[in-house]
Amino acid sequence: MRVGILGIAGRMGQELVAQARAAGHDVIGGTLNPASARAYRNDIPALGLPDLAGQSDVVIDFTHADAVAEHARILSTGRAAWVLGTTGISPEQQLQVEAASHRIAVLQAAHFGLGINLLMTVARQLAAILPAETYDAEIVEMHHRQKVDAPSGSALLLGQAVAEGRGTTLAAVMESGRDGHCGARATGAIGFASLRGGQIVGEHSLSFTALGEQITLSHRAFDRNIFAAGAMRAAAWLVGRPPGLYGIDEMLDLRPAREHDRQ
Amino acid sequence: MRVGILGIAGRMGQELVAQARAAGHDVIGGTLNPASARAYRNDIPALGLPDLAGQSDVVIDFTHADAVAEHARILSTGRAAWVLGTTGISPEQQLQVEAASHRIAVLQAAHFGLGINLLMTVARQLAAILPAETYDAEIVEMHHRQKVDAPSGSALLLGQAVAEGRGTTLAAVMESGRDGHCGARATGAIGFASLRGGQIVGEHSLSFTALGEQITLSHRAFDRNIFAAGAMRAAAWLVGRPPGLYGIDEMLDLRPAREHDRQ
Amino acid sequence: MRVGILGIAGRMGQELVAQARAAGHDVIGGTLNPASARAYRNDIPALGLPDLAGQSDVVIDFTHADAVAEHARILSTGRAAWVLGTTGISPEQQLQVEAASHRIAVLQAAHFGLGINLLMTVARQLAAILPAETYDAEIVEMHHRQKVDAPSGSALLLGQAVAEGRGTTLAAVMESGRDGHCGARATGAIGFASLRGGQIVGEHSLSFTALGEQITLSHRAFDRNIFAAGAMRAAAWLVGRPPGLYGIDEMLDLRPAREHDRQ
Amino acid sequence: MRVGILGIAGRMGQELVAQARAAGHDVIGGTLNPASARAYRNDIPALGLPDLAGQSDVVIDFTHADAVAEHARILSTGRAAWVLGTTGISPEQQLQVEAASHRIAVLQAAHFGLGINLLMTVARQLAAILPAETYDAEIVEMHHRQKVDAPSGSALLLGQAVAEGRGTTLAAVMESGRDGHCGARATGAIGFASLRGGQIVGEHSLSFTALGEQITLSHRAFDRNIFAAGAMRAAAWLVGRPPGLYGIDEMLDLRPAREHDRQ
Repeated sequence: MRVGILGIAGRMGQELVAQARAAGHDVIGGTLNPASARAYRNDIPALGLPDLAGQSDVVIDFTHADAVAEHARILSTGRAAWVLGTTGISPEQQLQVEAASHRIAVLQAAHFGLGINLLMTVARQLAAILPAETYDAEIVEMHHRQKVDAPSGSALLLGQAVAEGRGTTLAAVMESGRDGHCGARATGAIGFASLRGGQIVGEHSLSFTALGEQITLSHRAFDRNIFAAGAMRAAAWLVGRPPGLYGIDEMLDLRPAREHDRQ
Repeated sequence: MRVGILGIAGRMGQELVAQARAAGHDVIGGTLNPASARAYRNDIPALGLPDLAGQSDVVIDFTHADAVAEHARILSTGRAAWVLGTTGISPEQQLQVEAASHRIAVLQAAHFGLGINLLMTVARQLAAILPAETYDAEIVEMHHRQKVDAPSGSALLLGQAVAEGRGTTLAAVMESGRDGHCGARATGAIGFASLRGGQIVGEHSLSFTALGEQITLSHRAFDRNIFAAGAMRAAAWLVGRPPGLYGIDEMLDLRPAREHDRQ
Repeated sequence: MRVGILGIAGRMGQELVAQARAAGHDVIGGTLNPASARAYRNDIPALGLPDLAGQSDVVIDFTHADAVAEHARILSTGRAAWVLGTTGISPEQQLQVEAASHRIAVLQAAHFGLGINLLMTVARQLAAILPAETYDAEIVEMHHRQKVDAPSGSALLLGQAVAEGRGTTLAAVMESGRDGHCGARATGAIGFASLRGGQIVGEHSLSFTALGEQITLSHRAFDRNIFAAGAMRAAAWLVGRPPGLYGIDEMLDLRPAREHDRQ
Repeated sequence: MRVGILGIAGRMGQELVAQARAAGHDVIGGTLNPASARAYRNDIPALGLPDLAGQSDVVIDFTHADAVAEHARILSTGRAAWVLGTTGISPEQQLQVEAASHRIAVLQAAHFGLGINLLMTVARQLAAILPAETYDAEIVEMHHRQKVDAPSGSALLLGQAVAEGRGTTLAAVMESGRDGHCGARATGAIGFASLRGGQIVGEHSLSFTALGEQITLSHRAFDRNIFAAGAMRAAAWLVGRPPGLYGIDEMLDLRPAREHDRQ
């Protein structure tokens, strides 16, 4: 597989190069933003996006929302697939992504960690099966001591997955930050608790507790490089697919069966 | 729902009555084996199987393999569905079960605990997605101090589910009872470890550990009544279905999507 | 050992009888409060406290704070040791307990569960050793879904033990119910998180997380009978001791060494 | 504190320098073995041991057993304290260490990780309190996939600590590698189970499970640098102490109270 990396001088760009090489792929080159172009010292060629796209089977893009529209325009005239992990994309920018997806294969996701995405998918499935009246869902997350918000973004996504599986919204059933005389647990609630300490990269746990049993699904990230590894896996999956806008769930092929039937 | 309980005087029979009533179902009656008939004192009518089946929407059967052929013969002439949890059934007896399933709806399973079945299903899915070369699968179980064998039957089923998900057999990749100079872990191995202590009903944990992350799926049984609860849930699902031999996976609707497509 | 049970008709009284017999002790009899005297049907003699104390090596008292002063007065004239688990005792009542302890051996404690008391003691030790600046202490507890307050009483006692070990007070460093933009963890904070679900009897976990390692101390109660078992163990320890007011820490002999030196 | 590092060119030596500086200590210099002397390029002076000891408050020695006798001879003529983490020391070499300890303060330990040592100490205490007949001790460890032996050395030390606390030997009660029809758990046994996967640095867990409760003590090492950090902490504790052979337990001040009384 011939891979092009957008934003090759950045921290994520360099991690992507390392992962691509470790997986035995051919790294064609990368784009540089103007600010980093001058200082760039590396054996990988810095190319403009049209050139890079022309020589690559797939380009991987974890850059900035502001660059998305131009990337969409250039990439839609070529044949390279587009793995897109950039976040903070506006509705207008998203329309450009969708337009490009009529011409080329695009895989867009907020998280490329394989494990955390699997967790979301399985959480949705379990929640759809285990009755909310009898299986109490609780989410615990632990992160490093500097983290300023709680619950973590991934914990909230996990809670949303549970809520979706149960046919409700997280806002309607969320119970977070229990402290003091907070009353008995509401039936069907999704509870959250946040721990902080040390340099924990990220740990998430979702349990369903009934009278007679408890099922727990948990995830520990040891290293931030798992996100680059997930993007590389997504790239390999995407190459050769027909044009379209794919989600990471499709790559994982873990969607509930009824959605498959509907297609 | 009108429920009939086979073997109503036994420990499982009584638990099934309790669960059926707790769920608001109408317990029509139960069968007794000759040994327990004399001593039976209960407000629930003891009936012969033909009568019981005639008045019930579903009968639940956790009795003995020796009785299966006769149960199959009688039930196939009526309309009641048959939830069958009896184990140790011979191939010949199994043929009788299958014959009955051409006339009535039969749900047969080795385990009726909802959670432990979900665990198996999710384990198979995760194993099919997470590459065996990079995600090391390890199973730990803990049971009460009197248990004489290791690993537990459920741990082995869990290992089989992982092996199936990976397109191999458990026998080919099982690593159990590590002790002494046992060498490095084989790539693709499924490891087992067994703990014993106190009166633990049953705890199982399956982890997939890669360089950058770890995903763990675990289950704790607090109480043996979860098996009766699962059977009752199966009964409610089965009533009204067309004749056929159903598995508990179908009830849970968690089979991989491609199997749905094939049908 | 000859044991007398105060309040023998109550739930705790009956559990104490069961535990005493299981341990092979001789249950002399028990006292009844007037309300339960009429309905009492049991093979264990109901006696007045003077008689009971006269025949027992130790009496076990989980009754009411209102009865403590009279119990102290009667027991101090005899020779039976006094295991006292009654809570809600006023400062005046406590003076009566102390007066009695000049004449007889008294062991008084808020918790008689062996494990949970060990947890407190070890928590205090660990907190005194592990620098608060680098080891972040976090406490998680899980209880049944009906519990109306958070954190649990035992979690708070555990936090107090950590605070004491660090030479501070819990009020000064407690961080509970994180939710929303709560800022980075304060150095030296003790964090609390509360989970609710099913019929969990009580689970507590205290972790100390540093950059390079994490130490966790956890406790699960499977059954409420562990409190009666702890009281019985305390009784066996107390019999034959000289008069004095003992704490459960002394029974466990896990106080920090410097306190021993001071004596 | 003025610190000298023996074997400064090695992996442990360099980690010790990093930790000493991070803690604000003054690194005077280090010794080099002949093999590494030529290639040594560093801003820290390479000195002979007599010079180094003359300028340091404490020297830290994680070198080779073969060098211990000479180190003991040189150091005993100076005033620097000696933190000794070298393992594999013979009985004859140990006599030299002891001889030196009559002249200078020596702290010798097999493990300098603060957490893992605390774990051993607390394990011994818990084992001495919790009756072996009712609290079943089980040890689980997980390490990276390349590890060739099981259980881990630290798991065995942990088991020894439990055995000591119970007044027995590990050899007499060890149950490791359960597999197949291994029979019921022996009363008083200490069970071991070993998991392997990914790049786990080291996780150990010791649980005591009774009928009504379970107490678990666990440790996770995230990073190998915790051993150097522990050595530095030991050095700070040792400086200024009178001559003697100290153990890391004394530094932690977690020995059972009765040993204090004996002194």
